[in-house]
Amino acid sequence: MMGKFQVRTDLALEAKESCEAEDGQIRGVRVTEQADEKREIYTTTVVIETENGARMMGKPVGTYITLEAPNMSSPDEGYHAEISEALAGHLRGLLKQMAGEQASVLVVGLGNREVTPDALGPEVVGNLQVTRHMIRVYGRISTELQHACEVSAIVPGVMAQTGMETLEIIKGVVDETNPQLVIVIDALAARSTKRLNRTIQITDTGINPGSGVGNHRNAINAETIGVPVIAIGVPTVVDAATIVNDTMEELVEELDRSEGMQQLGGALGTLDHAEKQELIRELISSQLNTMFVTPKDIDETVKYLSYMISESLNQVLFEEEEA
Amino acid sequence: MMGKFQVRTDLALEAKESCEAEDGQIRGVRVTEQADEKREIYTTTVVIETENGARMMGKPVGTYITLEAPNMSSPDEGYHAEISEALAGHLRGLLKQMAGEQASVLVVGLGNREVTPDALGPEVVGNLQVTRHMIRVYGRISTELQHACEVSAIVPGVMAQTGMETLEIIKGVVDETNPQLVIVIDALAARSTKRLNRTIQITDTGINPGSGVGNHRNAINAETIGVPVIAIGVPTVVDAATIVNDTMEELVEELDRSEGMQQLGGALGTLDHAEKQELIRELISSQLNTMFVTPKDIDETVKYLSYMISESLNQVLFEEEEA
Amino acid sequence: MMGKFQVRTDLALEAKESCEAEDGQIRGVRVTEQADEKREIYTTTVVIETENGARMMGKPVGTYITLEAPNMSSPDEGYHAEISEALAGHLRGLLKQMAGEQASVLVVGLGNREVTPDALGPEVVGNLQVTRHMIRVYGRISTELQHACEVSAIVPGVMAQTGMETLEIIKGVVDETNPQLVIVIDALAARSTKRLNRTIQITDTGINPGSGVGNHRNAINAETIGVPVIAIGVPTVVDAATIVNDTMEELVEELDRSEGMQQLGGALGTLDHAEKQELIRELISSQLNTMFVTPKDIDETVKYLSYMISESLNQVLFEEEEA
Amino acid sequence: MMGKFQVRTDLALEAKESCEAEDGQIRGVRVTEQADEKREIYTTTVVIETENGARMMGKPVGTYITLEAPNMSSPDEGYHAEISEALAGHLRGLLKQMAGEQASVLVVGLGNREVTPDALGPEVVGNLQVTRHMIRVYGRISTELQHACEVSAIVPGVMAQTGMETLEIIKGVVDETNPQLVIVIDALAARSTKRLNRTIQITDTGINPGSGVGNHRNAINAETIGVPVIAIGVPTVVDAATIVNDTMEELVEELDRSEGMQQLGGALGTLDHAEKQELIRELISSQLNTMFVTPKDIDETVKYLSYMISESLNQVLFEEEEA
Repeated sequence: MMGKFQVRTDLALEAKESCEAEDGQIRGVRVTEQADEKREIYTTTVVIETENGARMMGKPVGTYITLEAPNMSSPDEGYHAEISEALAGHLRGLLKQMAGEQASVLVVGLGNREVTPDALGPEVVGNLQVTRHMIRVYGRISTELQHACEVSAIVPGVMAQTGMETLEIIKGVVDETNPQLVIVIDALAARSTKRLNRTIQITDTGINPGSGVGNHRNAINAETIGVPVIAIGVPTVVDAATIVNDTMEELVEELDRSEGMQQLGGALGTLDHAEKQELIRELISSQLNTMFVTPKDIDETVKYLSYMISESLNQVLFEEEEA
Repeated sequence: MMGKFQVRTDLALEAKESCEAEDGQIRGVRVTEQADEKREIYTTTVVIETENGARMMGKPVGTYITLEAPNMSSPDEGYHAEISEALAGHLRGLLKQMAGEQASVLVVGLGNREVTPDALGPEVVGNLQVTRHMIRVYGRISTELQHACEVSAIVPGVMAQTGMETLEIIKGVVDETNPQLVIVIDALAARSTKRLNRTIQITDTGINPGSGVGNHRNAINAETIGVPVIAIGVPTVVDAATIVNDTMEELVEELDRSEGMQQLGGALGTLDHAEKQELIRELISSQLNTMFVTPKDIDETVKYLSYMISESLNQVLFEEEEA
Repeated sequence: MMGKFQVRTDLALEAKESCEAEDGQIRGVRVTEQADEKREIYTTTVVIETENGARMMGKPVGTYITLEAPNMSSPDEGYHAEISEALAGHLRGLLKQMAGEQASVLVVGLGNREVTPDALGPEVVGNLQVTRHMIRVYGRISTELQHACEVSAIVPGVMAQTGMETLEIIKGVVDETNPQLVIVIDALAARSTKRLNRTIQITDTGINPGSGVGNHRNAINAETIGVPVIAIGVPTVVDAATIVNDTMEELVEELDRSEGMQQLGGALGTLDHAEKQELIRELISSQLNTMFVTPKDIDETVKYLSYMISESLNQVLFEEEEA
Repeated sequence: MMGKFQVRTDLALEAKESCEAEDGQIRGVRVTEQADEKREIYTTTVVIETENGARMMGKPVGTYITLEAPNMSSPDEGYHAEISEALAGHLRGLLKQMAGEQASVLVVGLGNREVTPDALGPEVVGNLQVTRHMIRVYGRISTELQHACEVSAIVPGVMAQTGMETLEIIKGVVDETNPQLVIVIDALAARSTKRLNRTIQITDTGINPGSGVGNHRNAINAETIGVPVIAIGVPTVVDAATIVNDTMEELVEELDRSEGMQQLGGALGTLDHAEKQELIRELISSQLNTMFVTPKDIDETVKYLSYMISESLNQVLFEEEEA
């Protein structure tokens, strides 16, 4: 069922492992996969349908789509045009479902524009076509705006810059301008260097606490702001502590496995997985928990990722009805 | 009374002219001037006390302070430290009056950070000490924060970027976070090149519609957002149409005056001021009305002006009680 | 011959006027015009062939191409793709002529990136595909780089930032890296608001002293740096003094013409054109000479103009031989 | 001799270890330490005097100064003013020695301004007082410029942006403008999170290949550019591979040491240090070698570090003779 994927998403992997544990399925969780070999775009959709599924997965009821494409941050316009379209397809579906035609949409670019790997959200908003003021002044008579959504946008900044939670700013703006839908773009911390800059996660459950490079303290979703929220995230950094932890777990397993180290294997065999983890954590400098790992060409990467996402959003929010 | 001023503020000038017209005073308008020759800082305070005064002056009831200093945008730290202090003195007074001690203050940097002369507000906010999140998490036990105001800050962007009026964004954030006072920083369009980058205007009546480089469409004041508003403005550009108009008025007066042009004098004498103005306006390209004039070193100027203003704000909002 | 043009370039106009003055032609100057009505791109090419022509035109011997397109700074990708192609056509021609196939090219983005209307050069370089380091390390075996030019790029900044003339920096880099050709991109000061952001000037004679928003003090051309120079310029600002002067000349002519002002007409008739100009200049504030006029949406404009030019350059410098 | 230092610099540590190995001293290497307890500034100076010392230390003959201060990137102006002064003292000494009074100095800000932790050099140059053009136009008659150095500055960018080695650009500019001295500012990769953003390294031997966040491929020193070079570096990132390696070494040593793991201790005892290292390296993802680790507040840190360094440079390069 997993077929040709080289990298599994967190959710797909968890779902599969649980499946195997629970005799083939978790009630209330549906996993589907799609491989577009020609375009090299691999899509995993996990739908958590019931509270039971939510409890098992540790995530709220809702839809979680992961697009994976090795060429995602390529400067080549051909490649990222295809990914833009794939992304646009999913967004169009969620948009119709959650808000209908010609909806009023507030796009929020989360993140700190002054920290390169966290600037994805602000850069996407910078390339977005906003229409709300045009529609309010000129109406939809202009053929351009006829079928467009009423798009507004904001870059709330981060708490260190504003002194406020992004939730407070978003809620305030939503209460004042009443959009039907909010789309949030955020840079994420991946759990592995293999996932960096080649995965997009889209969900209709908004932003979860603790996620994002900025480590969001509050959830940003329909419950907290009163309006449905689509979240689009791309991992641009890896958590430093995670990287060290993962590499060290490999060392411990290597030591376990090695023939020339039978004794080691024996000794380590007395520690279970949790105890090994504990040993590792004690060694990880606490400073690492406030740091992240990023590639050197992160400026180029964030630039092309933001073009790809804003292209997608502009297509969906600004398009002709027939398209 | 006017003494040694080379440049009069709009308000002072209007007040004086009205004074002279109305036998020495406008009821409900008080004008005071202060000259600090040593520091080269000239201060004019106009207080509009009654509705009658407001009607005569064309501005709401309130206090209007103009600081003028030739060295305002100098890179020399000595010079702008003195102006920071003078500005801080006025802000401290207004702050105490309008919000009391250790007030919660939202600082709003109006303007488009991507257009150099309009980036003053955003740059001031970039150098501001925000304390709200620290106070909320750690309390005021820390000696540093003991007497500080609870400072939050936001850069709302401009309507072309967000699709929303800045009033909508500010009102939303104010309703959500309930500061006791809002301080707005804005780049203004001066009426004369002589006033550029050397004047600060401070008022307790907020932002008026039509003002600012961005041409604000709504008032931002206690009426519209429910919280008192201090506005700090520095003219960084001159309106293109204004420049042409003013220079041309001078031409017309020159033609009026010139001896070798008696006939001209005679002929133009048949046109009153309004008719001359009309003639000039017909000639000013309509395109000029959407343009502004700015000096070439505007990046350096905005940088030093923003240091000077943020220094001032940090002093006032973060200071020890005794200071 | 001039047909449907609404705006004449400086050169074309001067050439034509001289033509008319000199019984139909200036020896050594050839003017051709091309109108692409469908794409709304109007091209004027002026070739100054001899020293006599250079003297008459006040510009060095060489080729001067002006593309004019009302939609040049449109965000619409369709429009500016067509203009990119037209520009690419001309650049390809000059490149072949001046440097041949797979040439080594240094692209120089003149201007101050911190002053929005002067940031055109730096922004074009920011979106350019540089290949020199890749070719030097990997060779041309890769199909991508097979026919590409060896492209290097630099943003020298302005004298206020570096303390050096851009000529010194460019010459130093050229002497060290020996490119066969230099392409310079610069923001220009237009002589009229009508020409703003809708004209591109391309010349094989490099940069002339006194031109550009930055008011270049030295020529940047084959004589001064030892390598042929293509200059690409787009007017993004209008000189403030020029705007006032032009509008005032219109006033003076209006006064000349007006029926109700016979006497004025008569009086002004005693002043010749030069004397009228003199009168006007005395009235123009000297401060205006260091200022420029720019539209409010200059950030968006410069962004789209730079995409359009970098798209063009990337096509020409990076293309397959057959294309 | 080492006294109260919590963190040893690479050089001091190596020198000390060698000392201990070689019966107390390495011929040709002199190490001195200075502790300013009040200001919390700890200075280590390593002078490599002979080729023998250079061979032992793996660094060229010259002076290597390390300032360490826990408060280096504090926003508190008091703290970083003291460190600026300490830094200025050392720079003044080197400047006098290497170039004399009123020298002509080119300041080079290495690094990629678009990648936050690598933007230190460009940001320092952005706040520098350049004087070369003023001195050339106005001479030194002005009291301000009387004793100032003739300062020029450049931000060469990185190879991915320019296609050129920074050495090529610097050499070209130096050959053209002939400064007597070059000062280079660079962000470095630290070997430990403990050293991040609290150490400044100053050397009169320029930049070594392989150093810096940007991993310089060529040396930038008197040999390669023909003019003496002072290099100022601050570690703003840690190499990702280094962090993992170091933490894993600790794990291996912990396993070695642990009582409950006698067998492990025994088993690992069969591997020498090099073999343990080898095992670790095989496990470190090769991708980590192109990545770096940085703290989340890196924008604030780089901002304050750059103020501190430019303050120092401006003091030294622009000061009155008596000071």
